[in-house]
Amino acid sequence: MMNVLEKAYPARALPRRCVVIIGAGFGGLACAGALGHAEVDVVVIDRRNHNLFQPLLYQVATAALSPADIAEPIRRTLGRYRNIHIMLAEADGIDTQTKRVMLKDGNAVAYDQLVIATGSEYNYFGHDEWQRFAPGLKTLHEARRIRHRLLLAFEKAEQTKDPAERRALLTSIVVGGGPTGVEMAGAISELGRSMASRDFRTIPLSDLRVILVEAGPRILSAFPEHLQTYALGYLEKIGVDVRLGAQVSDITMEGAVIAGEMVPAGNIVWGAGVKASPASRWLGLEGKANGRIPVDSKLRVEGYEDIFSLGDTSVQSGDNGAPLPALAQVAKQQGHYLGKLLAKIDTIEIAKPFHFNNRGNTAVIGRNAAIFDFGRWTLKGYLAWILWAIVHVYLLVNFEKRMLVTLQWIWRYLTRQRGARLIDENDREDVLPAARR
Amino acid sequence: MMNVLEKAYPARALPRRCVVIIGAGFGGLACAGALGHAEVDVVVIDRRNHNLFQPLLYQVATAALSPADIAEPIRRTLGRYRNIHIMLAEADGIDTQTKRVMLKDGNAVAYDQLVIATGSEYNYFGHDEWQRFAPGLKTLHEARRIRHRLLLAFEKAEQTKDPAERRALLTSIVVGGGPTGVEMAGAISELGRSMASRDFRTIPLSDLRVILVEAGPRILSAFPEHLQTYALGYLEKIGVDVRLGAQVSDITMEGAVIAGEMVPAGNIVWGAGVKASPASRWLGLEGKANGRIPVDSKLRVEGYEDIFSLGDTSVQSGDNGAPLPALAQVAKQQGHYLGKLLAKIDTIEIAKPFHFNNRGNTAVIGRNAAIFDFGRWTLKGYLAWILWAIVHVYLLVNFEKRMLVTLQWIWRYLTRQRGARLIDENDREDVLPAARR
Repeated sequence: MMNVLEKAYPARALPRRCVVIIGAGFGGLACAGALGHAEVDVVVIDRRNHNLFQPLLYQVATAALSPADIAEPIRRTLGRYRNIHIMLAEADGIDTQTKRVMLKDGNAVAYDQLVIATGSEYNYFGHDEWQRFAPGLKTLHEARRIRHRLLLAFEKAEQTKDPAERRALLTSIVVGGGPTGVEMAGAISELGRSMASRDFRTIPLSDLRVILVEAGPRILSAFPEHLQTYALGYLEKIGVDVRLGAQVSDITMEGAVIAGEMVPAGNIVWGAGVKASPASRWLGLEGKANGRIPVDSKLRVEGYEDIFSLGDTSVQSGDNGAPLPALAQVAKQQGHYLGKLLAKIDTIEIAKPFHFNNRGNTAVIGRNAAIFDFGRWTLKGYLAWILWAIVHVYLLVNFEKRMLVTLQWIWRYLTRQRGARLIDENDREDVLPAARR
Repeated sequence: MMNVLEKAYPARALPRRCVVIIGAGFGGLACAGALGHAEVDVVVIDRRNHNLFQPLLYQVATAALSPADIAEPIRRTLGRYRNIHIMLAEADGIDTQTKRVMLKDGNAVAYDQLVIATGSEYNYFGHDEWQRFAPGLKTLHEARRIRHRLLLAFEKAEQTKDPAERRALLTSIVVGGGPTGVEMAGAISELGRSMASRDFRTIPLSDLRVILVEAGPRILSAFPEHLQTYALGYLEKIGVDVRLGAQVSDITMEGAVIAGEMVPAGNIVWGAGVKASPASRWLGLEGKANGRIPVDSKLRVEGYEDIFSLGDTSVQSGDNGAPLPALAQVAKQQGHYLGKLLAKIDTIEIAKPFHFNNRGNTAVIGRNAAIFDFGRWTLKGYLAWILWAIVHVYLLVNFEKRMLVTLQWIWRYLTRQRGARLIDENDREDVLPAARR
């Protein structure tokens, strides 16, 4: 079969060596960028037309930022490289014999080298039916859904005459005590308090509840213990009810069963563990390490010379033998490394193995509070929060978005207002049980 | 039946005179604002939680601005008035005997005076089935749909190998030569040219088509003839194919029949005439002037002492006897007038009748080009465009949004980039015919 490029670009002088990258997240984009201007054709396949800055997605879900503030069209990011071609399409298989990526629309793209960078999705541990009631936080669509549901619950709470229903509507449950769960719980609590004190004067603060459920004994298990203690104390100070060692055994439209007790809730968010997207299934490698594909020190997938994987999709051992964490900075560094490697594929055997350079791990807990773990030293509180804000603005892709986000943060900090509190009437159907609409 | 307020706010000292306003558009908000701090209770009912700055909605549809940039939560706008209560609910009838507004959820709200400010919706002239394929431009949902469809058509056009299909995908049809149609046609043409020259290098500019269809002999019929001629010339210069005196007789997923000829198109936008929302039906007054409710010089609905209507919902005669146009500035001035009137309802008989103060009529045609008609004098071209931008930024409700929009416009003007080019994978289903997905 002909490469799809040959058909779409019939006038181009093909064939040149063609690297295909599936997924334009942090890893895929870094890899493509490092291949820009190289003597290869690069095809980047993604089912979305934008790269999402996921670390700030929770701010979209809590009405602080707009979707476009944290999303950058892939064509803009990679537009300056004339050897890079973008395809809006969904991959759903790999034919390793004929070296083609199979697309959902029936087409196929031929590769010489393939990079699988499809990222991760939330793991509902066998209860995929919970996803409807407890969205995760991976896409703009999910973030918007959470935002609608949060805001709508307040509107309905003000109109209801039934105290039990009001209490249920004003209860949010966040499942999972990792960074996403902690950030969401903190942000929901602050959003609720600010709305109750300004916009909804008839809603008593005492009716607001945010419950953070963690099955393990500690929140933020990847951080040193004194930072965990600090975060826990801060969350409790801003009104988050943290339930450690508690299991969620069922989730419905009405609420969640936490440690055996049914807690009615207007809003449930899922942040409990991720699994790799289905790419491992394409290679018959499912079942290992939450579906993550094992790769060697040069990011090659076991058993293949021409297939590579990086970021959350794969699992690689660090210098100390432990698997590298599923973090944006790992994906970015791997992408950059792999791009350079693929540009000079002939020298791969003598190339240096990938080395992860830890830039520090961070989580934000609330207004004025964040934690940083740099390995040798740590930081917490107000200074950490300032540093967190600077780092995240810096990491946003382009200058315009940096300015916009900075401006909105400063404004928000000074006024405590949130700008993106929108409920669209066409998005209302799926967010509340029929009885509460 | 008890006023809903009595139940929702049992502790309040009721009854006080209660003014109910249905609709929080320009007119409803102005009316509520003028009643702020007055000795009445005010209930504002809207099915959305935000006021939309519709004059800039076309910029959301063409990926220049984000939804939140032009939408303001009603609770923020009116939050400072403690006598104003906001209800997110959909009205669907009026019981004039018991003086209650009936809500879709089965509840009711009692009024002493009622203001109907429900605005207008697009008139498909008996072909409501066209709405699916040719959305109007009244809500954020519609603007997002148009944006997705526009951007997706480009992605698909790059991937297709069939020249006829590519040409169809790159064809946009705008129905209606009023201000909305002209603004959309100009903005789509400029968006297309900028995307073809930067983001989609394999798409030839010659394949782009924007067709503006107007059934009458002229575009912008409300403007003086020399401004119409200028606008027509400018549109043709930026590549818009303007078809005057042409009827659209059918619209399907595949395209539109224009003057008897089927034109395949990837994107169709409806801007051909509006009609009042169903409020006139609630009062048994349908069938007049496109469903607009006739009101007297004090905005009273004929036959009722306690029901008022303003803005696009109603029709009032101006000083010269001709009906006032359906413009934001009319609604705002009427709202302000009516609020003052309702604050002192006892003096309504001796109050001055409403007088419309024409602030000038404007339309923007493209980058660097707008027209203004101030009655006695007119303005066109670059200066008009600068004035248009200043006026629209000034009219945006709050300071933060003014800054954000100004900043984005300046950035966009300098770089010709559009920041909000997002396609969400969950919104894709309904925007393209199955064959083109």
